Amino acid sequence: MNEENLKKLFEEVRQGSCAVSEAVRRLKHWPAESIEFACLDHHRSLRTGFPEVVYGEDKSAEQIAAIMKNMMAQSCLALATRVNPAKGSAVCKEVSGLTYHETARMLAGNEDKVEEAGYRGTILVLSAGTSDMPVAEEAYLTARYLGNPVEKLYDVGVAGIHRLLGHTQMLDEATVLIVVAGMEGALPSVVGGLVDKPVIAVPTSVGYGSAFGGITALLGMLNSCAPGVAVVNIDNGFGAGCMAATINRKNE
Amino acid sequence: MNEENLKKLFEEVRQGSCAVSEAVRRLKHWPAESIEFACLDHHRSLRTGFPEVVYGEDKSAEQIAAIMKNMMAQSCLALATRVNPAKGSAVCKEVSGLTYHETARMLAGNEDKVEEAGYRGTILVLSAGTSDMPVAEEAYLTARYLGNPVEKLYDVGVAGIHRLLGHTQMLDEATVLIVVAGMEGALPSVVGGLVDKPVIAVPTSVGYGSAFGGITALLGMLNSCAPGVAVVNIDNGFGAGCMAATINRKNE
Amino acid sequence: MNEENLKKLFEEVRQGSCAVSEAVRRLKHWPAESIEFACLDHHRSLRTGFPEVVYGEDKSAEQIAAIMKNMMAQSCLALATRVNPAKGSAVCKEVSGLTYHETARMLAGNEDKVEEAGYRGTILVLSAGTSDMPVAEEAYLTARYLGNPVEKLYDVGVAGIHRLLGHTQMLDEATVLIVVAGMEGALPSVVGGLVDKPVIAVPTSVGYGSAFGGITALLGMLNSCAPGVAVVNIDNGFGAGCMAATINRKNE
Amino acid sequence: MNEENLKKLFEEVRQGSCAVSEAVRRLKHWPAESIEFACLDHHRSLRTGFPEVVYGEDKSAEQIAAIMKNMMAQSCLALATRVNPAKGSAVCKEVSGLTYHETARMLAGNEDKVEEAGYRGTILVLSAGTSDMPVAEEAYLTARYLGNPVEKLYDVGVAGIHRLLGHTQMLDEATVLIVVAGMEGALPSVVGGLVDKPVIAVPTSVGYGSAFGGITALLGMLNSCAPGVAVVNIDNGFGAGCMAATINRKNE
Amino acid sequence: MNEENLKKLFEEVRQGSCAVSEAVRRLKHWPAESIEFACLDHHRSLRTGFPEVVYGEDKSAEQIAAIMKNMMAQSCLALATRVNPAKGSAVCKEVSGLTYHETARMLAGNEDKVEEAGYRGTILVLSAGTSDMPVAEEAYLTARYLGNPVEKLYDVGVAGIHRLLGHTQMLDEATVLIVVAGMEGALPSVVGGLVDKPVIAVPTSVGYGSAFGGITALLGMLNSCAPGVAVVNIDNGFGAGCMAATINRKNE
Amino acid sequence: MNEENLKKLFEEVRQGSCAVSEAVRRLKHWPAESIEFACLDHHRSLRTGFPEVVYGEDKSAEQIAAIMKNMMAQSCLALATRVNPAKGSAVCKEVSGLTYHETARMLAGNEDKVEEAGYRGTILVLSAGTSDMPVAEEAYLTARYLGNPVEKLYDVGVAGIHRLLGHTQMLDEATVLIVVAGMEGALPSVVGGLVDKPVIAVPTSVGYGSAFGGITALLGMLNSCAPGVAVVNIDNGFGAGCMAATINRKNE
Amino acid sequence: MNEENLKKLFEEVRQGSCAVSEAVRRLKHWPAESIEFACLDHHRSLRTGFPEVVYGEDKSAEQIAAIMKNMMAQSCLALATRVNPAKGSAVCKEVSGLTYHETARMLAGNEDKVEEAGYRGTILVLSAGTSDMPVAEEAYLTARYLGNPVEKLYDVGVAGIHRLLGHTQMLDEATVLIVVAGMEGALPSVVGGLVDKPVIAVPTSVGYGSAFGGITALLGMLNSCAPGVAVVNIDNGFGAGCMAATINRKNE
Amino acid sequence: MNEENLKKLFEEVRQGSCAVSEAVRRLKHWPAESIEFACLDHHRSLRTGFPEVVYGEDKSAEQIAAIMKNMMAQSCLALATRVNPAKGSAVCKEVSGLTYHETARMLAGNEDKVEEAGYRGTILVLSAGTSDMPVAEEAYLTARYLGNPVEKLYDVGVAGIHRLLGHTQMLDEATVLIVVAGMEGALPSVVGGLVDKPVIAVPTSVGYGSAFGGITALLGMLNSCAPGVAVVNIDNGFGAGCMAATINRKNE
Repeated sequence: MNEENLKKLFEEVRQGSCAVSEAVRRLKHWPAESIEFACLDHHRSLRTGFPEVVYGEDKSAEQIAAIMKNMMAQSCLALATRVNPAKGSAVCKEVSGLTYHETARMLAGNEDKVEEAGYRGTILVLSAGTSDMPVAEEAYLTARYLGNPVEKLYDVGVAGIHRLLGHTQMLDEATVLIVVAGMEGALPSVVGGLVDKPVIAVPTSVGYGSAFGGITALLGMLNSCAPGVAVVNIDNGFGAGCMAATINRKNE
Repeated sequence: MNEENLKKLFEEVRQGSCAVSEAVRRLKHWPAESIEFACLDHHRSLRTGFPEVVYGEDKSAEQIAAIMKNMMAQSCLALATRVNPAKGSAVCKEVSGLTYHETARMLAGNEDKVEEAGYRGTILVLSAGTSDMPVAEEAYLTARYLGNPVEKLYDVGVAGIHRLLGHTQMLDEATVLIVVAGMEGALPSVVGGLVDKPVIAVPTSVGYGSAFGGITALLGMLNSCAPGVAVVNIDNGFGAGCMAATINRKNE
Repeated sequence: MNEENLKKLFEEVRQGSCAVSEAVRRLKHWPAESIEFACLDHHRSLRTGFPEVVYGEDKSAEQIAAIMKNMMAQSCLALATRVNPAKGSAVCKEVSGLTYHETARMLAGNEDKVEEAGYRGTILVLSAGTSDMPVAEEAYLTARYLGNPVEKLYDVGVAGIHRLLGHTQMLDEATVLIVVAGMEGALPSVVGGLVDKPVIAVPTSVGYGSAFGGITALLGMLNSCAPGVAVVNIDNGFGAGCMAATINRKNE
Repeated sequence: MNEENLKKLFEEVRQGSCAVSEAVRRLKHWPAESIEFACLDHHRSLRTGFPEVVYGEDKSAEQIAAIMKNMMAQSCLALATRVNPAKGSAVCKEVSGLTYHETARMLAGNEDKVEEAGYRGTILVLSAGTSDMPVAEEAYLTARYLGNPVEKLYDVGVAGIHRLLGHTQMLDEATVLIVVAGMEGALPSVVGGLVDKPVIAVPTSVGYGSAFGGITALLGMLNSCAPGVAVVNIDNGFGAGCMAATINRKNE
Repeated sequence: MNEENLKKLFEEVRQGSCAVSEAVRRLKHWPAESIEFACLDHHRSLRTGFPEVVYGEDKSAEQIAAIMKNMMAQSCLALATRVNPAKGSAVCKEVSGLTYHETARMLAGNEDKVEEAGYRGTILVLSAGTSDMPVAEEAYLTARYLGNPVEKLYDVGVAGIHRLLGHTQMLDEATVLIVVAGMEGALPSVVGGLVDKPVIAVPTSVGYGSAFGGITALLGMLNSCAPGVAVVNIDNGFGAGCMAATINRKNE
Repeated sequence: MNEENLKKLFEEVRQGSCAVSEAVRRLKHWPAESIEFACLDHHRSLRTGFPEVVYGEDKSAEQIAAIMKNMMAQSCLALATRVNPAKGSAVCKEVSGLTYHETARMLAGNEDKVEEAGYRGTILVLSAGTSDMPVAEEAYLTARYLGNPVEKLYDVGVAGIHRLLGHTQMLDEATVLIVVAGMEGALPSVVGGLVDKPVIAVPTSVGYGSAFGGITALLGMLNSCAPGVAVVNIDNGFGAGCMAATINRKNE
Repeated sequence: MNEENLKKLFEEVRQGSCAVSEAVRRLKHWPAESIEFACLDHHRSLRTGFPEVVYGEDKSAEQIAAIMKNMMAQSCLALATRVNPAKGSAVCKEVSGLTYHETARMLAGNEDKVEEAGYRGTILVLSAGTSDMPVAEEAYLTARYLGNPVEKLYDVGVAGIHRLLGHTQMLDEATVLIVVAGMEGALPSVVGGLVDKPVIAVPTSVGYGSAFGGITALLGMLNSCAPGVAVVNIDNGFGAGCMAATINRKNE
Repeated sequence: MNEENLKKLFEEVRQGSCAVSEAVRRLKHWPAESIEFACLDHHRSLRTGFPEVVYGEDKSAEQIAAIMKNMMAQSCLALATRVNPAKGSAVCKEVSGLTYHETARMLAGNEDKVEEAGYRGTILVLSAGTSDMPVAEEAYLTARYLGNPVEKLYDVGVAGIHRLLGHTQMLDEATVLIVVAGMEGALPSVVGGLVDKPVIAVPTSVGYGSAFGGITALLGMLNSCAPGVAVVNIDNGFGAGCMAATINRKNE
């Protein structure tokens, strides 16, 4: 039951063509039934300008292509994450007008539809090593496609702390920082001690042996002794980009 | 906004003292706001005859006493789980008419208020060893206080399989079986292979070394090769009793 | 020694052709030896109408084909679980009259042999996301092939709670609910809080990073704060289907 | 070498009392040596208005009292976290003018020195159960003492989802949300699906058995399928309060 | 139904006072019902000469005392394991004629009732460090009370390998070896490489940090590269003593 | 320095051609240096009749072939474990006279060289399911090739306990039992409760989800409540066969 | 700002063409900005003679070839680790003058550029089994390419302790020992008990089942009861070689 | 058989009072028997000047006092680690001339007996936070009592990286560095990137929640991306001190 139906019901009551008791009966299940409509509406408005994003990991090239085509036909930005090169090129052959970002493993279409969100400042993406780049790039592109200005500063891991310290101005000028690191995952702690901005830490599965596919980096980040640091799932560049965009959104 | 208010609103619309647009505006937030009322109502009806249960672990004797008193004043069955002996006797001194079940670590008041649920049959609680009795008793009493006929068969662990096999008739006559075991947690697999009734497996923290506080039993039960076995949390006798009662409830 | 032999023995004793001491000696090992017969008999009767099920994971296409043929020759329903597409099509080429359910990875033959069990009501299978569908479908088909009416409600995960709330009536009308979810595995808690029916929670290996192949979902479900929830192994749609069917069976 | 010394050195060079080569030699180690000064200065300015916070867990009552006295003598807000009741009352006896928050286990002095930060909006702290209150209160007080308007909404766990849904307006009006939950830790996923604000998830050690002292809740939150959710350490209410305050700070 | 009853039944059939069909009916449930009797009998005979053993960990001093008294009254050896000093002295005060072995935390009564089993040779108990002695002594006493000749060789850990090598003759003369070690748990591998006898490895919870309460030692022992090594639970000296006695038993 | 050299040295001393001090000097490093000789000798003698065994997992077909040829040329039994089918057939093509046991993944040559060890009785290998057969067969063949009479009893898992109970006589007649099981790993506990012989438990990696590649079975077996049970590594059929052979060896 | 600029600034101040206040202002950000230069300089000097090392695991053959060419063009030693055979031969085809070490999976170019470091003595690399050789060889070559004399002693695991004891002189003559072992990882404890030199323990992923990819060996080494033992990551032969070279470096 | 006995045996042979065959026979078991003597001698010499150290954790005050007295009577340095304050003061009352180091939980007697080892340089102990001091102090005192010059630099954790960078000269002047850190354990990585000296990383159990009693710090350190870092057990300050002393020892 949507607003139109509701209005009609009240009209019927007003005109006496529907008894009060009958009206009450009809609305009895409305809270539960209509909640879907209500929520959807709520959700739609609150996500205005945000692209739909396809999680490509467990979808076939055909499935991804179909969804991308559909979204592009609706003239909105089309995005897919975790698309491996084989699927990426297959989809690009099928659907024209797509860009495949190989490092970030992302597909994008209708890129001109990205609208600048009302943002507070610049998001800065840092990575500890070159091996962390796929995750860092996923975060970078996610934030950019969500309409934010984004900068990057890669390969500034803690074992060569001077590389990081040479860019303190860049750190100071950002509004939100995404810090991507594998192995011991120590970079967010150091960064969190240098700035007073929110730091989103992203552990990566880079490493071997007791790196345990990112668990070590994850634990290190959760135990950061610097305040103002919060963590997302291992390799979750997309989630970090979303969180950063949410923080960077201007609330009027 | 409850049913009364709703009726009043329709009356006002019918009588013209409230415009349709105004009525729509007033109901606009109803789905979200009224959901609480709706759900509560729904919940209350569906839990008729079920006692409120206090989780005593992280509450003081004073807090438990206060809640128990309050429930008893409302003439309904009052139950508390995970009440250690010290707290138990303190609460009993404070509130008269309570029974403290030491093994199960449960407190009960207004026990005459237990109403027989519409049940399908008998619930049978089995335990592997005497050390598993506190959890088994918690399950036993929970199911009984929820209005079910319950039987028990303790100390029938797999290392003396003949003890179990001597009671196959009891197994056959139950409608639901709760099987409580620590250490290797193998009993539910054996029981699940002997009966065609739902088996609720409860791992306990009994054991030492690589028993890992119940993890070994939990994992063993989750990997049971017998169909018709499902598992609850370690030492969660209360949860098993609830699940069994839910299964044993007659749906008309 | 079966009933015929036993009768014959008693006859011999009665007729004096067998001394009492000899009869006792012959029966001495009967309890142990005959238990197999006894149990088998017991098992056979109690599983009437239930199909034999082949666990296809570690069997070759040839092995699966052979067993399926054999079962079908006996005019009973033939089922195999965890059959990947390659094996599935190989078996279908070899054995005619089989249906391969790709999403559920199941093979079925003699489907007309499914007999309606004496059931109590409808089983409802819910899944949190589209990636959980293989497990949900395995549960769905298992319950259906065990003779139950089954409904499904997919993609109603907690991050879009309104999708679930829009179907409360479906929840209310089910007798048993199977709730399939990966990642954080929170759906069973929410469902368990909305209904007073037994909820069987099935964690799936969907997710990445700290999803740890389903461990996170499993732990989340075991710690559900809603009563009336029990859990089966990760990705164990078959086990959930069996458990649900066992609960839904009418006991006369 | 601070600014004064640097000026003096230049003066000497200008006046010829120090040769250029000597001046260069003196400054040679300056970058390394002076970085402490530089950073401290940098840090001090960027933390203006923020209280120093004592981590009380592994300090004696005497040590805490001494530090609190010292901070209060400097006319700035004095805070200590993780102070148990015994230590709390001991410190209060020793140092006058302190408030001990028992639930949050925090000590505060010179509370009138809290200056309102330039904030963007209201921080909302939610908790799943009453047992999560100590952590929720630590987050609440931390954010408040850092100069933010903070609201709270406790005991709205997912097993009774209607309690949460009855307060969607409160969710909508917050700028940042802190969501505190133990056991299965599902609340942040549900909240993250309802709002488009940054959600800081705080797992607590509430629960038993396979709750594993908060690991289950932590893993559940890291695997949240809702975007815009990031996680801090188990029971780290203080860290969540800091992160929220950092996000809520107005950058001019 | 035991042998007497069975004989009587046959007599009745022989004399015609019981019809064959009635006799069959009476025996119908015998396999299942009588299995307990059968197994018990089987068990009793096969454990001749073995003492009953009380697991004292989760029993009160009163409970232990009662069981010990009862066993002693039956003139058989009475043993209890995992009895801490407080309980030990309490039981000794209550029951006269008991010996309390403090290091092994064992209580023994009627020690003169130990009968020499038909054994194959000597059991040798080795321990890596002095901290492993409680477990080693439990194994030593268990094996001795089960009627075996036992020798011991303590404090011969791998970090001082010469201490072990100085006793190769002792190793050669044993029939079964129990090797007790904590920390890295390497001793069984070294011993297993020196002898061609069965080696029972017992990990202990000795150590700290990443010793993880015995897990490290346990894993080390399970991965021993020496053949002829098998492992029991952490700190399970009793189990090792039983296993050794079982191996050392002469089968006639 | 071997016995010959030692004798020569003494001769020289006796004849005066070597001074005592020189002789002492020459022997100074003997203990350390000669230990290798001593041990080797010791080892060689004590392993007489035992085949050398090649661990094939991380060796190429060429490497395995070379070692097998070499051993066969020395007229002794040649064995290799963990040889997959591809390697197996490659080696068989290269070296004639070999048998490849596909289920056990073992290669054997010069099988007529197996000498019956002086054994005490029969070793019995039990397995819970058909999927455990590769490990069970490895144990079976290992024990047989080490010169023991071995019997087998497969597919007698605990979910159909009657299958096991129908063979109690076989259990009673064995001297050592090897019990192989995956999933919940409960079979050794049940067997250990039925017999008074040493039971060697072998966990297998059979299962999925929370079977965790054999960890669950391993933990279950370590926590067996039956005495006389010890455990080897996951899938370590070879180790179990060695342990059983060591126990079954007659010591004269 | 480097030394030249600094000198120029002082000259300007001396000559009066730059005011003191202006000079101070210009240097204000120097500490932070110049730290990169300072550290780089510092690092470069301290690593003189050390080869750059490429981590080949996550780089393509093309990427490795490009970096190797570049380094060789600069006439310095070029090294790459974790290069699998396929990549190795691809790179060797592309770049002439390279040696591919297959066991160690390392590529080296300009090997004549290795300069002997000022070293203190010989580094000895021990390994427990032949399967540990890839890691041992990586450690061996790393140390050698860093300019150290290195010896090796392989296949001296603890299950045949005599093999190790036959080489005590070699142990005594080394300055640093690298001990590589998988499975139970016990070798470093034994070696650490025989020598008074620093022992670097390297766990390897060799083993199966509860070896858990090297975790068991890692834990065993961390719990070594011998003093003077420290541990690096699983399979980290390169790290062990670096640590050994760092210890073996002569400090003048 | 020691050197004296050996000489006597040769004399007897030379004088003819002992036949060569008899002499050979007498020496036959010498390698094995004398290894203990040989090793002990070897060990004693190689540890000259090193104090015996008592591990106080699982010893009573009486036991510690007895051993300390005994060592002091032999005029050598007496040390005990992991002595809690209660035991410490009890031992000090019993034995005069002892110093109790409360933070390090160490007892020392005959401190004037510390002889300066032939050392290479200064050992530097760093700690991340004040809570890490007990472990850092244990390392500090251990190294000092082993005769080394030791410096300390505490509370220089990575969240305030400037504190560390202000002391680069101290880092440069050390020969070996011990870096103690809890929580995320990132400090060794940063330090390892700044110096070219061996770094011994010591994880501590400081932290809460997902610090997991030091596991997080341990894993972080094992995955350090800086070369020249090796790790000891959690809280093992004593081991780190020994390792550092071993590295710092001058080999002549």
